Amino acid sequence: MNFSVTVLGTASAIPNSKRNPSSQLINIHERYFLVDCGEGTQIQIRKNKQKLGKINHIFISHLHGDHIYGLFPLLSTYNLLDRTSPLHIYANKNLEKILAFHVQYFISNQKFEIIFHTLPEGESINLYEDDHVLITAFPLQHSVPTHGFLFKEKDRLRKINKHKIKEYNIPVTQIMNIKNGASYTTKEGKLIPNNKITLDPPPARRFAYCSDTAYTESILPFVENVDLLYHEATFKENEKERAKTTQHSTAKEAATIAKLAKAKRLLVGHFSSRYKYLEALKKEAQIVFKETELAIDGETYIIPEKIIYPL
Amino acid sequence: MNFSVTVLGTASAIPNSKRNPSSQLINIHERYFLVDCGEGTQIQIRKNKQKLGKINHIFISHLHGDHIYGLFPLLSTYNLLDRTSPLHIYANKNLEKILAFHVQYFISNQKFEIIFHTLPEGESINLYEDDHVLITAFPLQHSVPTHGFLFKEKDRLRKINKHKIKEYNIPVTQIMNIKNGASYTTKEGKLIPNNKITLDPPPARRFAYCSDTAYTESILPFVENVDLLYHEATFKENEKERAKTTQHSTAKEAATIAKLAKAKRLLVGHFSSRYKYLEALKKEAQIVFKETELAIDGETYIIPEKIIYPL
Repeated sequence: MNFSVTVLGTASAIPNSKRNPSSQLINIHERYFLVDCGEGTQIQIRKNKQKLGKINHIFISHLHGDHIYGLFPLLSTYNLLDRTSPLHIYANKNLEKILAFHVQYFISNQKFEIIFHTLPEGESINLYEDDHVLITAFPLQHSVPTHGFLFKEKDRLRKINKHKIKEYNIPVTQIMNIKNGASYTTKEGKLIPNNKITLDPPPARRFAYCSDTAYTESILPFVENVDLLYHEATFKENEKERAKTTQHSTAKEAATIAKLAKAKRLLVGHFSSRYKYLEALKKEAQIVFKETELAIDGETYIIPEKIIYPL
Repeated sequence: MNFSVTVLGTASAIPNSKRNPSSQLINIHERYFLVDCGEGTQIQIRKNKQKLGKINHIFISHLHGDHIYGLFPLLSTYNLLDRTSPLHIYANKNLEKILAFHVQYFISNQKFEIIFHTLPEGESINLYEDDHVLITAFPLQHSVPTHGFLFKEKDRLRKINKHKIKEYNIPVTQIMNIKNGASYTTKEGKLIPNNKITLDPPPARRFAYCSDTAYTESILPFVENVDLLYHEATFKENEKERAKTTQHSTAKEAATIAKLAKAKRLLVGHFSSRYKYLEALKKEAQIVFKETELAIDGETYIIPEKIIYPL
């Protein structure tokens, strides 16, 4: 089952010829979630040969232009493509007014519904849940109300060892109970513990998106033990003061969060346009947290499923 | 002296991975004029290694998203880059309200002035004039009020043949008169006609931008004899009815305008996303007007200065 993150842009406020503004496309079990939507997002999605029409949920971290300017043209395109399925947008309350203004001037004969979900300022909230995925927003620390997002694969049922079904002659009616963790008592009255007839499911995977934000340990409860942490790293350490005043992070600060959270991997992005080369940011981060990578526009980062082999 | 047109986007309403939305950067004697500003324009400008800061005048043909969505992020970038010089924007009156809304939500601490110039619906108007350039807007025929733009190099002064200055011993005080076309009378009272002592200046060059528009011969007085005509060609001839109802043009119709206008060259663009390959559009146009080219994203089209040699 897929769990991947396609980075569509790694620029901060000012894009350039190589780095696009913020946007990421998350695929969890073929459900597609768009996070942020900077200028050119729809073009980046097409360049990556992804289908616009598969996106039904868009999460906007905060209302700065570099995270949102691509949303208006994307909505126009959906309408021109005769989209009819509803589109869920999760964002700060002010976006609802901005969208209404936009629709009034730029979308005639709107063919699909926009279902707006307000992110409560300064609070965490579960936004989306289905059989496989739970998505939670949590507050970041930035110059305007901002949320990060945690994408959590749900625990799957235990896997039945097919050889054991035969061995113990287990009836079909018991399968779901056993998958849910029940032990099995044979006709002869012998108790077979669940762990003798099932295998662990692959561990549930987690991805967290944290941009834009100053360094804040308040996010640790939300991002702990994630398989992949995307954390903004706008500046190098020599611009630490500037990071503080603009409420952004340095690469080292992003790495410190990854370390404290016991994340498995860290992906840094939202790079200031002042940096032509990024190796120095990576080095500063890797001193604190070795498993740091620089996010690259257009690259897909896969969180592999851990395969549990039978004993 | 330069006169060139850099095409930043050739898509129509729906962009794709190869074709960006409408925008062109016109350079006349190192004055830079931006025409239309679809999504991603600032990124396209940077990819073409042009300087954003040199643009002081932006002309918006009409208020459809694919001609305007890149304006808001461009303004944000100017502010982040601490632009202080005023920016002139020429557009339909409604853009002023839209810009005010945008500035309120997305630009804090605005550092430069936006000087808004209203294009009068259904009328032509001279928009900009300096010693070298005259820019005129003229009405196109589209589903919303739309203007085309004529960029006209001004006639330059006649060139004095330096050998003749010596031969007739012409004093410096007479030079400007002669450049302006006056003849010269020698001390001996002999009249030397102007054309014996001067050379013609290079002919003034002209470029016209016509997008979006249905086929309309009403634009001919504005575009006649242009050196380069950019005319939209959204559809092939088999979609002529669709072109009519959506108020766009076919490639053949664009070519017909070029022929009737006695344009020197025709550049077609604003291609429908339904066409992966464009050769068929070009062929249909070239049957009517041979000097037709398909506009290409990122390509610069130079209008060369015609050099007049002395006899």
